Amino acid sequence: MTEIAIIGFGTVGSGIAEVIDENQAEIRRELPEGIHVKYILDIRDFPGSPYADRVVHDIDVILNDPEISVICETMGGKEPAFTFSKRALEKGISVCTSNKELVDALGGTLAVIAREHNCSYLFEASVGGGIPILRPLRSSFAQEFITSVIGILNGTTNYILTKMETEDLDFEEALRQAQDNGYAERNPEADIEGYDPCRKIAILASLVTGMNVKYQQVPCEGISKIDKKDLQYARAIGRAVKLLGVCRHDRATNQILVRTAPYMVPKGHPLYSVEDVFNAIMVHGNMVGDLMFYGSGAGKLPTASAVVSDVVECIQNAGKNIDIGLRNQPAVMGDAMAEKVSFFVRVPAEQADKAKTYFGSEIQPVSIGVESEFAFTTPEITEGDFAARIKEFDGAKSIRLL
Amino acid sequence: MTEIAIIGFGTVGSGIAEVIDENQAEIRRELPEGIHVKYILDIRDFPGSPYADRVVHDIDVILNDPEISVICETMGGKEPAFTFSKRALEKGISVCTSNKELVDALGGTLAVIAREHNCSYLFEASVGGGIPILRPLRSSFAQEFITSVIGILNGTTNYILTKMETEDLDFEEALRQAQDNGYAERNPEADIEGYDPCRKIAILASLVTGMNVKYQQVPCEGISKIDKKDLQYARAIGRAVKLLGVCRHDRATNQILVRTAPYMVPKGHPLYSVEDVFNAIMVHGNMVGDLMFYGSGAGKLPTASAVVSDVVECIQNAGKNIDIGLRNQPAVMGDAMAEKVSFFVRVPAEQADKAKTYFGSEIQPVSIGVESEFAFTTPEITEGDFAARIKEFDGAKSIRLL
Repeated sequence: MTEIAIIGFGTVGSGIAEVIDENQAEIRRELPEGIHVKYILDIRDFPGSPYADRVVHDIDVILNDPEISVICETMGGKEPAFTFSKRALEKGISVCTSNKELVDALGGTLAVIAREHNCSYLFEASVGGGIPILRPLRSSFAQEFITSVIGILNGTTNYILTKMETEDLDFEEALRQAQDNGYAERNPEADIEGYDPCRKIAILASLVTGMNVKYQQVPCEGISKIDKKDLQYARAIGRAVKLLGVCRHDRATNQILVRTAPYMVPKGHPLYSVEDVFNAIMVHGNMVGDLMFYGSGAGKLPTASAVVSDVVECIQNAGKNIDIGLRNQPAVMGDAMAEKVSFFVRVPAEQADKAKTYFGSEIQPVSIGVESEFAFTTPEITEGDFAARIKEFDGAKSIRLL
Repeated sequence: MTEIAIIGFGTVGSGIAEVIDENQAEIRRELPEGIHVKYILDIRDFPGSPYADRVVHDIDVILNDPEISVICETMGGKEPAFTFSKRALEKGISVCTSNKELVDALGGTLAVIAREHNCSYLFEASVGGGIPILRPLRSSFAQEFITSVIGILNGTTNYILTKMETEDLDFEEALRQAQDNGYAERNPEADIEGYDPCRKIAILASLVTGMNVKYQQVPCEGISKIDKKDLQYARAIGRAVKLLGVCRHDRATNQILVRTAPYMVPKGHPLYSVEDVFNAIMVHGNMVGDLMFYGSGAGKLPTASAVVSDVVECIQNAGKNIDIGLRNQPAVMGDAMAEKVSFFVRVPAEQADKAKTYFGSEIQPVSIGVESEFAFTTPEITEGDFAARIKEFDGAKSIRLL
């Protein structure tokens, strides 16, 4: 048996134990000796749990046991997760994690430490939950230049937008339902303001480019200002509103543009029909074209399954570093203000003529029968130009078109 | 430079040369020494082509060159592709292919030869074109029991069905358009009768179970009998008709059920909105739940890209066998007649009462205003029961519901 430890026995951590127990026979097809959870580190005890006898409260018990080859870090947050992960890697113990906050902040640092100590730092579960996305990106696309990655990366907000769409609810009402159903937290800020998907697109951007993209470098808007009229307008032009993480990589300049924001996605686009708590990530390669990976973006067992897939790979590569391509160099960010985008815009009705003056006669009016406002879509315009013009309008509201 | 050869310089073969030339810089991120196409085997010459000087007509030139580490087999068909592949593998030269006919017929045999000679036989491009599906199945799911794989595996027939749906065409008309647009061959039998997707679901079933499933073991129906009324009926019950490959694997018995047939797929199902020439493969794991992989199922560069991804993996694992899990043992096929399915059925109007007698009062009538026939959906019923009852009806027609 290969001995492993789980540090942080919350939802994902306990899911890992469950996946390993329940699917031990499957794991043994690949690893005939099997995997055994020797320790669980948590500040709590779990009396009555079948794992109670494996609970320890001191990380040194784990780090000083030479039998441990892999640690699953499912504590969340930066500390003590960073220190524990660093110390493990320095001892040659691989670390597999679902902790996107730590991966975004210090993943590059930990990847370098892993390389120096012939072990691995893997984090498939940190993006897209159970969806295999990071491993395909590094193992199936050596021959591709990835020009864009566009994803629905947060199940909570996609659930809220789906509810708003299908039941014609306003944001607050849909949020309440999401909370009642356990899909949104009591403090939903990280989801609805886009911080969670922003971290995930930063991780994807880092892996695609090999450079470190921090979420603080990524312009981020959430969905808390979306109202049901926005969805009605979207429907009127054959689109749906989705919160997207978008990364575009220019082959000539090596510059990247990254953004998290709500977009109106056209019918026929594969992301258009991704509903409820599902996630989907669209990848465009210069040779392979469009690909999409779809699945459960969160949830105990899907996320735990992704962590265990990393554990298996670490064990198969014991004593070696699995190079995830993170080089811990700062990313070359393009000028976000120079990006060209079309916008959907709502302004008060009396500013209709002004809108035509500012945005040109090619704007396309959109009507859902609300007389108090004038809504339209613009041709492609740079972010900078748009920002300069829209600030001349009182009470204006805009959403990008994908 | 790592030297490789391409045998069969048709659409995919020439695409491989193009991917390697165009994206050499990307390939060198993973393989700093790069990849070079030293030989191209074809019966033709290619005067004027930049590759003209590399063309050879004798396989022995390639097999006797100790510099060659990988061969891309893009000849298609069983022979001489099998003999050439076998001889290469016996010399320790890895073979990467898009040749689904050969993989289905003799992939298990070649996989065993590769294992015995410390090289690899990989065929990512044989299923789903550019979609990474075989590699994720073997590298991301060691911890999963895959209970089902359901895919739209043929772009031509999906294009035809999409045309029929969006332009209200009959089958023959849509087929003609597909031929005019180069999406269907002049002899379209392999696509429209389902033989092509049948081979692909057999390959997927083999990889999921580790056992050899031959396409001859897979019940196969195509779409040539689908008419536009079927699509109208499907729409009336919120469904779309898709040609699917379906594989279900039972964990308790290890038995598998595999089938290729048109199905009515409900709105909201991720496969429902897969249109035109795109392919998508849905995988259900007992821990991870539903996942879907979507992309270009055919086409020169996407397919070539998938072959090159295999080449890169072979070079990274030079001197070793990449175990794809194929054990060359016959599959344990379940009783196809015992599978439970719901059906959509059309019978002549005068047999409406008989239908209720034979299929029970729980059948749900479906109407699109065609008075000459009675259409309905059945509750779940075994394939065997259904077959026994439907043969009592003259002029009946049925499609399975997913």
